[in-house]
Amino acid sequence: MAKQDRAIRTRQTILGAAARVFEEHGYQAATITEILTTAGVTKGALYFHFQSKEDLAHGVLSEQDQRLTVPDRPCKIQEVVDVIMLHAHRLQTDPMVRAGVRLSLDQQAHDLDRSGPFLNWATVMREHLEKAQTQGELLPHVQPAESADILVGSFAGIQAMSQALTDYHDLTDRVRTLLHHLLPNIIHASILTTLDLTPTRGQTVYNELTTTPHTTTP
Amino acid sequence: MAKQDRAIRTRQTILGAAARVFEEHGYQAATITEILTTAGVTKGALYFHFQSKEDLAHGVLSEQDQRLTVPDRPCKIQEVVDVIMLHAHRLQTDPMVRAGVRLSLDQQAHDLDRSGPFLNWATVMREHLEKAQTQGELLPHVQPAESADILVGSFAGIQAMSQALTDYHDLTDRVRTLLHHLLPNIIHASILTTLDLTPTRGQTVYNELTTTPHTTTP
Repeated sequence: MAKQDRAIRTRQTILGAAARVFEEHGYQAATITEILTTAGVTKGALYFHFQSKEDLAHGVLSEQDQRLTVPDRPCKIQEVVDVIMLHAHRLQTDPMVRAGVRLSLDQQAHDLDRSGPFLNWATVMREHLEKAQTQGELLPHVQPAESADILVGSFAGIQAMSQALTDYHDLTDRVRTLLHHLLPNIIHASILTTLDLTPTRGQTVYNELTTTPHTTTP
Repeated sequence: MAKQDRAIRTRQTILGAAARVFEEHGYQAATITEILTTAGVTKGALYFHFQSKEDLAHGVLSEQDQRLTVPDRPCKIQEVVDVIMLHAHRLQTDPMVRAGVRLSLDQQAHDLDRSGPFLNWATVMREHLEKAQTQGELLPHVQPAESADILVGSFAGIQAMSQALTDYHDLTDRVRTLLHHLLPNIIHASILTTLDLTPTRGQTVYNELTTTPHTTTP
């Protein structure tokens, strides 16, 4: 294994351990010592990759917006739906994504700047909505930045409610109901009828991304 | 001071201290010892009112739905708006309400059943929406229970986003934008135009409730 591969693998091991410790104790109570023990790496290895607990938290926070970019669709609102349904699917299946989302909602983590994920997601949503606007998919009154914030904020709460009530079993249903409530006030009815909003949409997009080679523009 | 008054006051002191400690450390890391020190009461006094850390957390969680019931309005959707805007106002001004909301979103609090506030709020919303339905205010396709869940879940996320980005400074604006996105798909346009959705609505309702004597049916 090349030296660089080993470094990437160690970094992922440490992030995985940090995610588990943050999940277990919350950000405030988590300690680097416990992350070290959980990861089974040396102090030197950890500090080579991350300088502080805060740095580790930012690593976990940013894992949720890594790697999986939804491919271009003719309908830009379908891209918005796909981003959201894919994220719901990953929340149900990927512990690292789950840890990142929970950390961004950890309102007790006073010293930690948790704005990153909210701002990143809002930017992703805004960009998709702006493209949709250019294509004439949005209702005339819609401001992409404003609607992007609503999509991101409401998704955050809907997933928290689903986790508290059913440990994510009904997440897909709740997210679809949210979209049924929001989209008719954002896009034209003619677009609404063409959307794929089936419950398995997140899984479908995930399979599409992980089975076909997918290149993103740098 | 009567014995009962003293007991009520002690209970509130303990709850206030528990709220502060949960805010500071999160549920998992909080200890009864620190709550005792913060409250300045004896162990006996605390255990007279609360049997465990979980019991204290449930006390804090349920404080957010205590005492303030929005009065009857001719328009039932105005009541829905008032409940939401009042809650936003209390989140900005009452540390106990804030602690309760944060605790219900503390996804690290594994042993704590956090479903209570979500279910209580959903019930309150559903009841208002059912009255609105009886009065013909809702669009024909609306299912009160479903829309109630969306209002509660999306509010939870919008407040978390506002806290993470601006420490609640823009909470009222974000909540109004959320209602602007959701209500047109729930109620008739003719009702929409009659609603008071001004930014100061929460403060107005709060003043109404705290300055005039208000009786609720038991």
